Amino acid sequence: MASDEERRITISAIAREAGVSVPTVSRVLNGRSDVSPGTRERVEELLSRHGYRRRPASTRVSANLIDLVFNDLDSPWAVEIIRGVEEVAHASGFGTVVSAVHRHSTHMRQWLQNLRARATDGVILVASDLAPPLHAELRRLDMPVVVVDPAGVPSMDVPTIGATNWTGGRLATEYLLSLGHRRIGFIAGPTSLLCSRARLDGYRAALEASGVPVDDSLIQQGDFYHESGFAGGMALLDMDKSPTAIFASSDQMALGVYEAVRQRGLRVPNDVSVVGFDDLPEVRWSSPPLTTIRQPLAEMGLLAARTVLRLAQGEKIESPRVELATELVVRDSAAPPSL
Amino acid sequence: MASDEERRITISAIAREAGVSVPTVSRVLNGRSDVSPGTRERVEELLSRHGYRRRPASTRVSANLIDLVFNDLDSPWAVEIIRGVEEVAHASGFGTVVSAVHRHSTHMRQWLQNLRARATDGVILVASDLAPPLHAELRRLDMPVVVVDPAGVPSMDVPTIGATNWTGGRLATEYLLSLGHRRIGFIAGPTSLLCSRARLDGYRAALEASGVPVDDSLIQQGDFYHESGFAGGMALLDMDKSPTAIFASSDQMALGVYEAVRQRGLRVPNDVSVVGFDDLPEVRWSSPPLTTIRQPLAEMGLLAARTVLRLAQGEKIESPRVELATELVVRDSAAPPSL
Repeated sequence: MASDEERRITISAIAREAGVSVPTVSRVLNGRSDVSPGTRERVEELLSRHGYRRRPASTRVSANLIDLVFNDLDSPWAVEIIRGVEEVAHASGFGTVVSAVHRHSTHMRQWLQNLRARATDGVILVASDLAPPLHAELRRLDMPVVVVDPAGVPSMDVPTIGATNWTGGRLATEYLLSLGHRRIGFIAGPTSLLCSRARLDGYRAALEASGVPVDDSLIQQGDFYHESGFAGGMALLDMDKSPTAIFASSDQMALGVYEAVRQRGLRVPNDVSVVGFDDLPEVRWSSPPLTTIRQPLAEMGLLAARTVLRLAQGEKIESPRVELATELVVRDSAAPPSL
Repeated sequence: MASDEERRITISAIAREAGVSVPTVSRVLNGRSDVSPGTRERVEELLSRHGYRRRPASTRVSANLIDLVFNDLDSPWAVEIIRGVEEVAHASGFGTVVSAVHRHSTHMRQWLQNLRARATDGVILVASDLAPPLHAELRRLDMPVVVVDPAGVPSMDVPTIGATNWTGGRLATEYLLSLGHRRIGFIAGPTSLLCSRARLDGYRAALEASGVPVDDSLIQQGDFYHESGFAGGMALLDMDKSPTAIFASSDQMALGVYEAVRQRGLRVPNDVSVVGFDDLPEVRWSSPPLTTIRQPLAEMGLLAARTVLRLAQGEKIESPRVELATELVVRDSAAPPSL
């Protein structure tokens, strides 16, 4: 829009205001290291305050790189998502640069600096809580961004690829109901994440649709990690009238329930049925193999890579918020309740 | 060396022999896509035949990238090694480009083309059988290469980072002996890999040192994957005089043994002790948590990244074959034999 253009501030105006030369502002814009930290900060601050926008992607020199950023590389999701992104990137002649920023602002700052230096074509952020702080910076760089979000965050103004958490919660519970279970324990994820709420709502919806009253004493609070599944499993198994099945809303928590069952001298699924959520690669090899809800993590990575490549070519994305289907994967950890 | 220099063929000689222009040879050398496949192949062939060497690393424009190449990204080792490499690369301002070549020559060719286009500073190859074909190509590119090799391959003329497999095999067996086991089953890895042999030799050495005769009927052939651990475990459990402990020489096989034990209505460690090898992240969450031999995969990645960055700066590596120490990690899957 013309009015927008007119309001744009020029590099020379920034240089004047910062009291530096035009080439110095350019060096900051290009992420060069030969600028003093103080000058860089002053220039960055002015660029930000005046909403200076980098040249559009189409005129940028392409390095044929996609940056894929995680909080931590020990996330159970990491390798599946890398696999999906890499497949699309590789086929398109792009390299996939994988980084972990560990929620540290110094790591993020270093990553942003590296990112500018290597002239990446687009960025895929994984894990929700990363997105808000980084996204503001990336917008300033005019960098195409897609968020892969297995956890579910409130909508942002970048394309986001998630999974149908509510439906997954419903599917798991319906399956246990179909086996004849009526007392079904639930171990919830952190309340701060939308996906936790969606899975819990799916559990409640399935029970109510079957005329089974929701018993809040069967709902344990967890945090998606193993230890909380173990604690929630112990609490459920030690109830006077313990559940015959437990739906843990992450695979790591489901494996925690396995350990609780083992420590109580019981067996999965003979004494207690267990269903998880995620379908991490390793749960095929759990003993017994885990029945779970599959989040299509590699497909989410594939779609994220396709989307970011389209954005890098200046295309518009018509559906900015996509949820890929979850599905029930039946293995050996659930059976009819023993009488 | 001057004599070496003198023997070097020039770009114009290659162009003459291929019947193309000098800029065309340059385009091939720079991995540009605006060259016909036939021409590219002819020029590549001549470059290879005459042993044309790219400019040394010191004069190359650095893209501040390390390429990390796997056969497959569903390798159980992948994420640990990525974590180690990324940590060093990130701290040095380098990006880590992760690729999977799936043992396909077309994938490898595409990857090599992408590699040239992005002017990577160095390459880390993971998994042994990748190395020989790719290494020849990479040598032509004058590209620093390091091999991370948890499986053990015959020595190559590039720096290689492995782990002490023989010692690990010995440690696992000594631990089971110290618990009082005398009939200890062993599930071996593929005979084509040196590490399989080293682990088996460590098992034999520990038995012999304790005066326990090696019983070949207790040694099952596996391939490191889950299914072969299950089959080997079943065979051992169904013996007339079945072992009281099983040492599976990979974690995936150890989890296969868990499933065999479960299907036979037995328990780990009450009825059978199990020890693995690798210490993959997920075995902390197996039920019971697996006692295993730790390969320091992330540390191997760290060291590989440090080594490739040193090579990229033209340094010489004094110890081209490093084996990092394995160690016993005691969890809950082994106990004294039941009488």
